Amino acid sequence: MEKVLVDLGAASYEIFIGTDILSGVEKFISGKALLVTQENIFKLCAEKFPYEVAFIPDGETSKSLREAEKIYTRAIEAGLDRKSVVIALGGGVVGDLAGFVAATFMRGISLIQIPTTLLAQVDSSVGGKTAVNHALGKNLIGAFHQPRAVFIDLNFLKTLPEREIKSGLGEVVKYGVISDEKFFSYFEDNADKILSRDLKILAHIVKRSCEIKAQVVGADEKESGLRRILNFGHTMAHAIEEETHYEKYRHGEAVAIGMLAAAQISSELGKTSAANVTRLENLIKKFGMVTNCAGLDADKLYDVTFRDKKTVGGKVNWVLMKNFGEVEISNDVPAQIVKKVFGRLCSGD
Amino acid sequence: MEKVLVDLGAASYEIFIGTDILSGVEKFISGKALLVTQENIFKLCAEKFPYEVAFIPDGETSKSLREAEKIYTRAIEAGLDRKSVVIALGGGVVGDLAGFVAATFMRGISLIQIPTTLLAQVDSSVGGKTAVNHALGKNLIGAFHQPRAVFIDLNFLKTLPEREIKSGLGEVVKYGVISDEKFFSYFEDNADKILSRDLKILAHIVKRSCEIKAQVVGADEKESGLRRILNFGHTMAHAIEEETHYEKYRHGEAVAIGMLAAAQISSELGKTSAANVTRLENLIKKFGMVTNCAGLDADKLYDVTFRDKKTVGGKVNWVLMKNFGEVEISNDVPAQIVKKVFGRLCSGD
Repeated sequence: MEKVLVDLGAASYEIFIGTDILSGVEKFISGKALLVTQENIFKLCAEKFPYEVAFIPDGETSKSLREAEKIYTRAIEAGLDRKSVVIALGGGVVGDLAGFVAATFMRGISLIQIPTTLLAQVDSSVGGKTAVNHALGKNLIGAFHQPRAVFIDLNFLKTLPEREIKSGLGEVVKYGVISDEKFFSYFEDNADKILSRDLKILAHIVKRSCEIKAQVVGADEKESGLRRILNFGHTMAHAIEEETHYEKYRHGEAVAIGMLAAAQISSELGKTSAANVTRLENLIKKFGMVTNCAGLDADKLYDVTFRDKKTVGGKVNWVLMKNFGEVEISNDVPAQIVKKVFGRLCSGD
Repeated sequence: MEKVLVDLGAASYEIFIGTDILSGVEKFISGKALLVTQENIFKLCAEKFPYEVAFIPDGETSKSLREAEKIYTRAIEAGLDRKSVVIALGGGVVGDLAGFVAATFMRGISLIQIPTTLLAQVDSSVGGKTAVNHALGKNLIGAFHQPRAVFIDLNFLKTLPEREIKSGLGEVVKYGVISDEKFFSYFEDNADKILSRDLKILAHIVKRSCEIKAQVVGADEKESGLRRILNFGHTMAHAIEEETHYEKYRHGEAVAIGMLAAAQISSELGKTSAANVTRLENLIKKFGMVTNCAGLDADKLYDVTFRDKKTVGGKVNWVLMKNFGEVEISNDVPAQIVKKVFGRLCSGD
């Protein structure tokens, strides 16, 4: 079993990574616990969790205040108190929703994250972001609430549909671009083994991703500066997801297209080379992810980027690429460059 | 104008106390702001707040997720971003609800508290507790979210119904009991001027109450220890409020009865003198507050105390009185003593 420390002073916690590690969860529970999960995941490991259970339906629509209210009700009926623990077992939807409930039940109780998708393992389960959606926008209601521990059991990766793995790779590739050229090369060298789910290779990928995220979050817990680099590829991705009502693209797929957009914009601005853009595009292709969003309206996407909650004072904070492992933030990218790149990606060229 | 510092490191803020001080609010607002208030309060000072406004209905039922959702919608429609500010103008209901929205909108934006009732000025606006109610219990959903500033304009106290002032005095008396015998004597010496709303006297009362609360909160922001002493009188008070569906007693009235319960229990346990109990009771009477809850069922109230969210591991943390200015926490008060005291207060003796 590997460990990664998220260093946040008194709120520090460890990420445990390995296979068959879920028996370690019970050490973190003294009083009562409420497991929040989905039925199909629970079936895989029910015997590991002798706690009260709140089931939520599959799908992004579960990330709502209404669903949160049902979990509060279960928590109250089960007699949870301030020393109790919420356990989130599932992908990003479960983690975000259960995390929000833990953040707000009795003004905050302990949370343990057990992410079961690649995306949740390398991204959403680490760093303390929790949220539910509002009818007018995704993740608009939420809180920062760090977990007490994260348990990443790699066995879950064997159970995922292929598209789910590819979606997770979108975020993994991002870590290579924003902070570690060597990590990026590792993907290029091991693409086949990654896709065939070699657990040894996946263990390294998950661990290194968690290390990078832990480092960024440790330096800027509440996203006032450095943490923004994690948004690389997400400006256009959020617009794509919103325009397609979160139905056509998985999050990581939208991020892959969004990373290409950010890289191309960086190249248009002379901040990075065309060769870097091609290198990024080639890896995304190698992982079998789409590299355009043909059919969408570039102007509409452009308008939607301004509705993102990272927008401050009406300005979009673009994360731009200089080199692999080196990015910068800019809030004055000319509109015509963004529109040109969006136009290219929407035409499918 | 007087100032009280709430010392919480990077989250420190000031409480401004005086008359005609609301023009100071604008210094804390750079981008957009959303004022959350009630229509009758807004009428008193509309010209001071050239911001977007979200009105909420009067009454405790406004402290709901449903009402919060309406405010999120207003915030989104008004184009608030992460640098925007929520201003809570009103009593405890407004402050708790608007505070919860500020704590959870885009994972937390700035909050300015402008409490307009005595209760909110000396208690709920300071310390960062925010909450909404769940159908199964009060304040069960919430977050700690410190304001950036608190503006206490004493002029509002002139506009309150008499019962509202008396309710606030319940919490004020509590500060005397838990931490300052001199402050308690001040109430005894100035009871008439307090009730006639002498602003000079009220200014002192509000300031000293804020100082005591700021000191306790500064030492224990998230209520893991010392902050629990603020709960003096609240164990029975919450049970009374719940049993009477928050309709018969104002919060401060229930706290007054609850303080008598805690004092009598302390006396039964030999921790304080009968003279101290009488002295407390005399002041409560002098302020014209009720000193019993005749007609309620003592056994039921006793059962309800265990549903309080301060209960941990099935044990009630009683705040007991030793002397004026000296209290202690105990979680092993014998049931028969609690029931005896509850029985006395419910019989009206």
